[in-house]
Amino acid sequence: MMREEVLSCIRGRRSTRSFQPEQISPEQLDALLEAAIWAPSGGNSQTWKFFAIQNQEKLLTLNELVRMSFQTWVPDDDYAAKLNAKEKSAREGYNFYFHAPTLIVATNRPHYANAMADCATALQNIFLAAHAVGLGSCYINQLRWLRDEDIIRQYLCALGMPEDYVVCGAAAVGYIKTPMPEQARKADTVYIIR
Amino acid sequence: MMREEVLSCIRGRRSTRSFQPEQISPEQLDALLEAAIWAPSGGNSQTWKFFAIQNQEKLLTLNELVRMSFQTWVPDDDYAAKLNAKEKSAREGYNFYFHAPTLIVATNRPHYANAMADCATALQNIFLAAHAVGLGSCYINQLRWLRDEDIIRQYLCALGMPEDYVVCGAAAVGYIKTPMPEQARKADTVYIIR
Repeated sequence: MMREEVLSCIRGRRSTRSFQPEQISPEQLDALLEAAIWAPSGGNSQTWKFFAIQNQEKLLTLNELVRMSFQTWVPDDDYAAKLNAKEKSAREGYNFYFHAPTLIVATNRPHYANAMADCATALQNIFLAAHAVGLGSCYINQLRWLRDEDIIRQYLCALGMPEDYVVCGAAAVGYIKTPMPEQARKADTVYIIR
Repeated sequence: MMREEVLSCIRGRRSTRSFQPEQISPEQLDALLEAAIWAPSGGNSQTWKFFAIQNQEKLLTLNELVRMSFQTWVPDDDYAAKLNAKEKSAREGYNFYFHAPTLIVATNRPHYANAMADCATALQNIFLAAHAVGLGSCYINQLRWLRDEDIIRQYLCALGMPEDYVVCGAAAVGYIKTPMPEQARKADTVYIIR
């Protein structure tokens, strides 16, 4: 019964912010990346590129660059989560990907009008596939917010991102350490016009 | 086995552009809307609002407003799909939602930095849920591109969209008339840094 399994996966996925250090298996990673590339894209353009970073030293370096960038970064809008993230980044032990063993960075062409939507649908596939294979995941925005910072760009390009690409989002993935409780859904978000 | 069913659903979903006129059942619609609201949202804000339009007269009126808007609309970038859509809208029999019996419009706050990402993850949930319950679906961009056009805004607000909301995307949904073939995946979109 595809119906129940899929709806149950969609309903049961949580955003996980506490991971075990154990790395996910190559088969699990393949399932996530395979899920990503089967998302829809504008005109089936598939201009996205996904970078799964599993090297812990490189991830920690990236975390240091994120911390450094936040110090001088000024948010371009008043979204509270941005200021909150900047503030948190100054604290001892800050880790923008919650110490997940794998971070999948979704990138795309900067001036492509569907870049964000395409990457977000692919990230949602990753989150659902992660839940299906017994992993937790979380949508990570920091690399998108800081995507124009030179030290972030240079490091990601050194890891393989093309010079003319930008980060649209990322997924932290790993085995769940502390399960998240179900978050209530807000009222008045759905309307049917018959 | 959640694993296989979910991965198979992700892998088997197609963008459908040819629908049967038969309306989807209330149970199917509920499954899609339930899937939408269980997507992740920035800081679990759930600021989205989804409008499922199933009234065929209202959908056809919306189609006429889209055609009218396209006549004077100038794309704000050089994304080929926009000019293509504008050109197609002048043709006899144009229908921006491919005559699907249901159109689910995803809206959000205009200045919320995660508006697009949140709506796109919710739309992907809708597409997957649609596939799981035996329906086809397609990502529809026209209402987003035309979201600042007065006649589009006024009509959507008359249908219930709050004055301070904007369209981020939409999903055309219905029974599949002509199945779409599998589209090959492009090479060089996935990189693993171990």
